[in-house]
Order: sequence, then C-alpha cells, then structure tokens
Amino acid sequence: MMPSGGAGRPDGDTREDTALAAVVHTSRGDYRVLADRDILHRLAPEMEEAGLGGRAFIISDGALFPTGARRVQDALEAGGFPAHVLSVGAGEATKDMDVVRRVYGWLAGHLAERIDTIVALGGGVVGDLAGFVAATWLRGVPFVQVPTTLAAMVDASLGGKTAINLPEGKNLVGAFYQPRLVLADVTFLDTLPARELTAGWAEAIKHGLILDSRLLATFEEHAEDILSLRGDRAVSVIRESMRIKAGIVSADEFETGQDRILLNYGHTAGHAMEAITGYGRFLHGEAVSVGMMAAAGIAQRLGMIDSTLVERQRAVLAQYGLPLSADGMSTDEVIEAARSDKKSRGGVIRWVLLEAPGRATTRLDVPQELIREAISEVLAPGAR
Amino acid sequence: MMPSGGAGRPDGDTREDTALAAVVHTSRGDYRVLADRDILHRLAPEMEEAGLGGRAFIISDGALFPTGARRVQDALEAGGFPAHVLSVGAGEATKDMDVVRRVYGWLAGHLAERIDTIVALGGGVVGDLAGFVAATWLRGVPFVQVPTTLAAMVDASLGGKTAINLPEGKNLVGAFYQPRLVLADVTFLDTLPARELTAGWAEAIKHGLILDSRLLATFEEHAEDILSLRGDRAVSVIRESMRIKAGIVSADEFETGQDRILLNYGHTAGHAMEAITGYGRFLHGEAVSVGMMAAAGIAQRLGMIDSTLVERQRAVLAQYGLPLSADGMSTDEVIEAARSDKKSRGGVIRWVLLEAPGRATTRLDVPQELIREAISEVLAPGAR
Repeated sequence: MMPSGGAGRPDGDTREDTALAAVVHTSRGDYRVLADRDILHRLAPEMEEAGLGGRAFIISDGALFPTGARRVQDALEAGGFPAHVLSVGAGEATKDMDVVRRVYGWLAGHLAERIDTIVALGGGVVGDLAGFVAATWLRGVPFVQVPTTLAAMVDASLGGKTAINLPEGKNLVGAFYQPRLVLADVTFLDTLPARELTAGWAEAIKHGLILDSRLLATFEEHAEDILSLRGDRAVSVIRESMRIKAGIVSADEFETGQDRILLNYGHTAGHAMEAITGYGRFLHGEAVSVGMMAAAGIAQRLGMIDSTLVERQRAVLAQYGLPLSADGMSTDEVIEAARSDKKSRGGVIRWVLLEAPGRATTRLDVPQELIREAISEVLAPGAR
Repeated sequence: MMPSGGAGRPDGDTREDTALAAVVHTSRGDYRVLADRDILHRLAPEMEEAGLGGRAFIISDGALFPTGARRVQDALEAGGFPAHVLSVGAGEATKDMDVVRRVYGWLAGHLAERIDTIVALGGGVVGDLAGFVAATWLRGVPFVQVPTTLAAMVDASLGGKTAINLPEGKNLVGAFYQPRLVLADVTFLDTLPARELTAGWAEAIKHGLILDSRLLATFEEHAEDILSLRGDRAVSVIRESMRIKAGIVSADEFETGQDRILLNYGHTAGHAMEAITGYGRFLHGEAVSVGMMAAAGIAQRLGMIDSTLVERQRAVLAQYGLPLSADGMSTDEVIEAARSDKKSRGGVIRWVLLEAPGRATTRLDVPQELIREAISEVLAPGAR
C-alpha cells in the first residue's frame, strides 16, 4: 500500500526518482505524487506520461497571478501543452457557486474538451474549486494539482476531495475526484507568508502523530533546519508527509473505511472553532493544532495515553509556532458545532484519538463530561 | 457481463425474480435494475437490501406532483424510510444551476446527511438533475432512480450519466455517478402522454438495432401488443432493453472504451437537430429516430449494409409512430452542430453505424460528401 518511492522516472531513466513521494492507487487508476525544489520543468513530461494531451486550463490563485501563473504556463507550453490561465480570488469566499459558474463560462468560451486538462495552481481553496470544476465539466476532465502552499502540498492536493461552499455551510457541495498527477514545487514556499507556512506544518506534524513516529521524531529533532526550508530536510519531511497521506487515500479512497477518518485528528474541535468564528479568524492548520490539543486531553482522560505524549505533542506544535489554545469561544458552542459536523452521525461525534506516538484510533463512546473538560481546557483564558 | 436475470429476491426467496432486468457492475459496487407493473411496494425493501438507511429525499417531476409523488412517499414511509418530497419543474429548463442551488438549499434545510438517499422520481430531466445533486451533495450521497417515462426507464435511468445545462450549452456540467438501485414501475406509463411514449420506443428499438436482433424482431412482430402496453409483452421488451443498456454500462462505465459509444447510434445527427432547434421542437427520441435514418443512409453508402436493413429499420420506426425525416433545417447547420458536439475530437465525428441487424460499430473516416448526402436525404421536404 505504501509505495517505496523507488520507481524510475517516466522517461525510462532507471535511476531512482528522488522527487517521487508516492504513487496513489485509486479505483480509476494510479497517479504519481512528486515534490522537490525547482521541478516545474517536469510538469509537462509527467502529464504526458500520465496519458494527458490536449490543452491545459490553469486555474490560478490570485496571489500567484501573474508571475507564478506565467511560470507554470511557460513550462506547460514549452512542454507542448497550449495553456490558458484564469485567475480566481484567494481565500475561502472563492469556493462559491458564482465563481464555479464563472469558471464554467471560461471553459465554455474556449470550448474546453474532454481531452483537455484542468490544472489547479494555488492552495487548498483553488485546489478544491478547480477539482470540483474538473469533476463536473463534461462529466469529468483530467485534473492536475500544482499545490503552492504547504498545507496544500502535504494535505489538500492529495486524496481527491473537492468542494465548494454554500451560504448554508462550508464544503457542503463537492465530489471525490482524483487528480492524475500532483506536482509540488517546494520553491513556491519561499514566498509563502510566514503564518500560512506555520499553519501548514500542523497537518504534516499530524501525519507523524497519527501514523509515523519516525516522522514525528524528525520534526522534533530537526525543527530549525525544517523551519528554515534550507537544505534537504524540509523537502524530505514534506515528501514523507505526502507519502503518508497517499497511503491512506490508496487504502480508503471514498472515506468509507476506518483508515481515512484518522486524518481527521484534531479536526473535530478544529472545524468547530473555524465554523464558530466564520472561517475568518483561524487558518485551518491553526484550528487543527488547538483541536489536536483538545483531542490529546480527551485521550489522556480516557487513559489511552499518558501526560508524556500530551506534553510531547504540545512541545512539537509549539516548536513550529502553532497555537495550543484559543479564547473568545464557549465550550458549549464548540461542542454544539462539532455535533452538527457532516461527519457526525445522528449527533454522535466520532473522535480520532492517539493511542501512542504514530498510532491513532477512533472512539464513539467518549463521555460528554470528559469532552467538555478537554475542550474547556484549550479554551480557558489561562490555557497554555 | 450480461446477467441472466435469474437471481433470487433479496429477501432470500429463491424463486426467480421475474422483475429483475439486470445487475449493473460498477467500480463502486453492483446495483439491481427492476421493472414490472405495480412494484412500488418493493422500493423500500430493495433500498434496504442495497444497504441504504436514513431518510429519503424524493425529487419529483412536477407532472407527478402530488399524486405520484405521494404514492412513492407512502411506499417509502411504509417501508421504514422517512421521506421528504420536493417538486421541480418538468422540461429541459429544469436542469439548471439555479434549480440545483434550490435543491441544495432544501437539503441543507433538512440537514440531509451522508446516510440519506436521494430518490429521482420522473423522466430523464429529473434523473439528470437529481443524480447531479446526489453526486455532489456532501461529495456524494446514495441515489435511487424511479423512472416514470419510457425513455428514462429504458435509457436515462441506467448508466450514471447525470447532467445540467448551462446557457452556453446542454449537459456541459455533470458527473458519472451510479445509482444504488433502479426501480421502474411500468404502471406509470399508463398516464404518460402518447407522444412521450412514442419517443421512448426509439431508444428501446435502438438497443435492438445495435445489439440484439432478437429484440428487434420482437418489436417488429408484436408491435400491436407492445404499443397497447397490455399483457406481458411491453413489460418484457422494456426489461430486455434495460438489460442491454445495463450490460453496456457494466462493460464501459465511464465511456472510455469502445462499448458505450454504440449507444449513441442515431444521436450524432439527432443531437445536432435538437441543438439547432433549441431543444424545443423534438423530443429526444424523435430526433434520435431521424438520426438513425441518417446513420443508416451513411452505412448503406459505405456498403456496410444493404437497402434491406435500411428499409427494415424504417419500417419498425414507422410502426411505432416515430418520425423518419425532418424539415426546416439545412444540411450545413446539422453538420456544423454535429462537429461541435462534446463527443467530437477536434471536429472529427465518430459515427455509430450498423453492420447487421443487432450489430454496430464506429467509423471516424466517413467522407464528408457522403455525410452530406445522407443528412440531406432525411432533411429533404420529400423525404419519407
């Protein structure tokens, strides 16, 4: 299930392809996941190797327009893909039916066909939007992810979850639709705002906490190197984190099994806090960080883990500059919001909880009072 | 691939289930296809057998509201599924982003969850719309088709093609999304307008022409019985037609192979004529009937079939009251519209053509002049 990363380059060169993070296996075929510095020149050859032809329709985060978008467009055209670019706003408000309608109109104007490819260039918002458009234009056209934020690289670009928001709620509309290729040029991170970079580490560290104690240890031992983005260490933890996510997606493409739900560690309370604050206050990774602290508090109270692991999680999140608590919300409103999440069944919350470093499980039977205590702890004004 | 139809009832009764037309095999699991008179009482047990629970959200064709919708709602509630009903307009204009938005709002208002099921009750328009909503609500919720028109029973309800229209074109947005069950109560046809019934036979006869000479012969020999809808003959040809479509879908779920394209027999010129006339003049089956005559003219000119089969096709379509020609359009505009269809690649038309009764193939190399002649023939004022 977890690929070794030792597959050859698509051009037949048999040297190990060090950029290859994983191969994701899905019901509609496999796709490659690459991450490295300065690999935009590989985008066109990899797309060709994946069987793609026709034109490329790049949907670009406004923050990357025009410079970043032009680099990708040039790389595609040099590699034989005529490429069009549409810039959409950045931020959650972009994932909206009206924007989707505008993108459809752009594709219709260019007579985009089933052989053409939609390329998402940006963070999770653009990936979700472009993926939804790719899933639904002409009943599905090929889709490529070029994530440019850390959160999108290690998490959102992988796994085929696409979504848009309705006035009634976030991500209420979407599709499971896998990309045909994910190519992360880590160079994009050099210009990413510091707060977004910090938030991105939350998901990467989460992968270590729930599934890979070795990755967790690397984050702890090499924080300075990793945070600087210099040298190979940052690229390699990004690639490792992508490999973990890819393995989970391969095992549970449609989130119907018991695997994929583990990725939701920290997301139950995290989503709830984002919802309460109208998605305007926290970056997703920040809310997940606080949510992981709440989940750790629950696991400790249930006797699943001891204080050593709770403190270890607290320390590594703090090393990466992530928040450990939040104020201005009541315990009741966080619990209420968590119960109405679309993953809850009949109002019962399925908590993802740690059992050990690098190992997680789910529990449906957490006593209400205990949830209340743990959430209250991360919301307390005096919380660390 | 083609199921025998001999599977037992889901309740463990080992008698042959005569209503079972087919089991469709898809990448996400199998689903049963049933057709018979008065089988609404089987809807809830079949849904349960398919693993569905939760509530049912019935999206009903306005023409069936409230009487038909109430019958289905009662059947579901009697079988343990709390059921809500939303009536949407009938007609192509219903397959619109604004209507989709309204349906999403309805689902949001009821807090529809991933365990709930969307039930399409109506013709192809409602099936396409409800299927698209099911494919995209919460990234996909279970979907059941209860087709109430002949065209939807023998064609549209099977195969997972969902779609909505944009101002820029028909069916530009959609998804491949398979239902979990298709249940056709043939009793609904008793009140279907005569012209819609006639148009529906076009797709059923098409299945015989391209894939089953025995079914074709049944249509020819028992036209009176079938047209009356009395006795078992009509139900059995409907079931046979569903079985053929189910076999094709099982073999080529995403229309990426060479199988499913055969279902497009008569659709190249047919779609073109519908597009030119703004989808307001022909019922789909009527346009397909004329399109099949154009395709037969091409096959004959290519020497693939002789005049006997052309005349045989003409006769059976005429027996069922279907049009064999159309006026008021120019050959040039029909050809131009066919070239811009989303199934064309780079403007080259892939024609589906008969080789023999019950056997079809595709050809990309049809000379332009020959296409012109054949289309001109079905558009001529003096055409039969």
